[in-house]
Amino acid sequence: MHVLITGAAGMIGRKLIERLVRDGRIGERAVAQLTLQDIVEPSKPAGVRFAVTTRAGDLSVPGEAAALVADAPDVIFHLAAVVSGEAEADFEKGYRVNLDGTRLLLEAVRMRKYNPRVIYASSAAVFGAPFPEAIPDDFHLTPLTSYGTAKAIGELLLSDYTRRGFLDGIGLRFPTVCVRPGKPNKAASGFFSGIIREPLAGEDAVLPVPDTTRHTHASPRAAVNFLVHAALLDGAAVGPRRNLTMPGVSVTVAGQIEALRKIAGDRVVSRIKRKPDAIVARIVGSWPERFDTRRARELGFVAETDFAEIIRIHIEDELQGKIAN
Amino acid sequence: MHVLITGAAGMIGRKLIERLVRDGRIGERAVAQLTLQDIVEPSKPAGVRFAVTTRAGDLSVPGEAAALVADAPDVIFHLAAVVSGEAEADFEKGYRVNLDGTRLLLEAVRMRKYNPRVIYASSAAVFGAPFPEAIPDDFHLTPLTSYGTAKAIGELLLSDYTRRGFLDGIGLRFPTVCVRPGKPNKAASGFFSGIIREPLAGEDAVLPVPDTTRHTHASPRAAVNFLVHAALLDGAAVGPRRNLTMPGVSVTVAGQIEALRKIAGDRVVSRIKRKPDAIVARIVGSWPERFDTRRARELGFVAETDFAEIIRIHIEDELQGKIAN
Repeated sequence: MHVLITGAAGMIGRKLIERLVRDGRIGERAVAQLTLQDIVEPSKPAGVRFAVTTRAGDLSVPGEAAALVADAPDVIFHLAAVVSGEAEADFEKGYRVNLDGTRLLLEAVRMRKYNPRVIYASSAAVFGAPFPEAIPDDFHLTPLTSYGTAKAIGELLLSDYTRRGFLDGIGLRFPTVCVRPGKPNKAASGFFSGIIREPLAGEDAVLPVPDTTRHTHASPRAAVNFLVHAALLDGAAVGPRRNLTMPGVSVTVAGQIEALRKIAGDRVVSRIKRKPDAIVARIVGSWPERFDTRRARELGFVAETDFAEIIRIHIEDELQGKIAN
Repeated sequence: MHVLITGAAGMIGRKLIERLVRDGRIGERAVAQLTLQDIVEPSKPAGVRFAVTTRAGDLSVPGEAAALVADAPDVIFHLAAVVSGEAEADFEKGYRVNLDGTRLLLEAVRMRKYNPRVIYASSAAVFGAPFPEAIPDDFHLTPLTSYGTAKAIGELLLSDYTRRGFLDGIGLRFPTVCVRPGKPNKAASGFFSGIIREPLAGEDAVLPVPDTTRHTHASPRAAVNFLVHAALLDGAAVGPRRNLTMPGVSVTVAGQIEALRKIAGDRVVSRIKRKPDAIVARIVGSWPERFDTRRARELGFVAETDFAEIIRIHIEDELQGKIAN
């Protein structure tokens, strides 16, 4: 089979590529060809047993999407997006990439006439406060950011294109991916990963919000599992409602810290420095805390069951099992 | 004040123009200028005490929307749309007019930088079955047509543009407008008006669905009231959730017929000919029956309270008070 990944140079894209290279297949079907797209040329993975094509390009430029689907990839993972903070800071860029890029990709698939599985990376940002205690799958779409608005529009397009038989779409609303590997970034959510990643690497981390802050997380490994599972789902079993809130671990910051303490000890935990930041606390306070993901779980999507498991996966996948004491 | 109406040649557009010509004002503010846009040149109303400009053009053509907002109209009624059946039959035309046309208008307003009140004609078609008994304002957006999808996307754009301060939007989800004046049309919903309009005019009308079919209606006069009321609303009182389901009369076909009998007698009712049509019954059966419109009513939107009132308005506004016996 031929697999296309947009946004392949991003964190989840790279993890998904690693997984496809390792497995060599999605379910029963061997991967024969992999096309990797991003705004910067994605690096070719090493040790690959199938054909890999890389392509640098902007999906929002007319013609780019048509070139990507010219060979009719069987499965398309559409991960390319401008992140939340950037889409809010640069309105035009956010809409161009997140809305036009997505629409042009769906349009290219429609014009190619072959009905592939399209897996769309959506986000819990399609929901906006006020929230019920646990947000159900069918909570109304009230995004409070331009990022969330474009993601919600993408969901609506995905459903309509699926209904009309132009493609076979599955939208996945990801919870926050934690522990994000790599350097700290400037996202308001960055500390959720930072307070685990930095202390485990022997460095201090800043905690800008109260310990009572609750949030939902899934590991990068779980996120990749969601994508691969979505590629294998029977569309008929999903029915007409194609956008699914993914499961995750709902935990307070205090719960994150206690899990870290059990795994890595007090010395590691002592590297977390409390430095309250009212602005970050206000942003994070408007985010969802908990989701009711019954539908995704019934369809076989699996996340971690506690935060300790998320930490262990980070230690295993990113630190080769080693903690800086 | 300067008022712009897109889709001004349509039924609601013409009724709105009549109203503005009659009142000469919206609330406290006198209308000084009226710009009328449609794909065909709208006719100039007679007896007008203010300046009227008409313009034939396609909102989905770049530059058209910018020309319309060049003079910074204070209130924009955005009614232009391809109707449900046509948007389903012609996918590209539906998206071009209903999505691109709306987005280009909002973009033109954003670029003009002056934050006008924009009233967006949305539709109950943003909702899709399965439904609760009464659909609340915050029911999730699950359109089952391309028309409903484009309308839902317009709602999301309207909210985001409002949140960012580019415009001050109010989206109105209209129930079925009944009794539609004029000739019978081919819309699946056409009979809801036809079984009242034709018998009152001395002609036979076909009823293709069972008498138990329930639906929600508002008169053309109520629809125009919604639009004018939306122009006057205090945005702060509406808050961030800018799309409102309008009130209406939820009634069965049997209830419609009984109201007609009380007003016009058995002879008029006998002109309704039952001719079951499984296809129409299936389409109509998937539509919403009842809405919970508490929010709109609290904000002062008013519709008829029973179907007899809807019939009386038709007789008054369209038949000069005369029934064909």
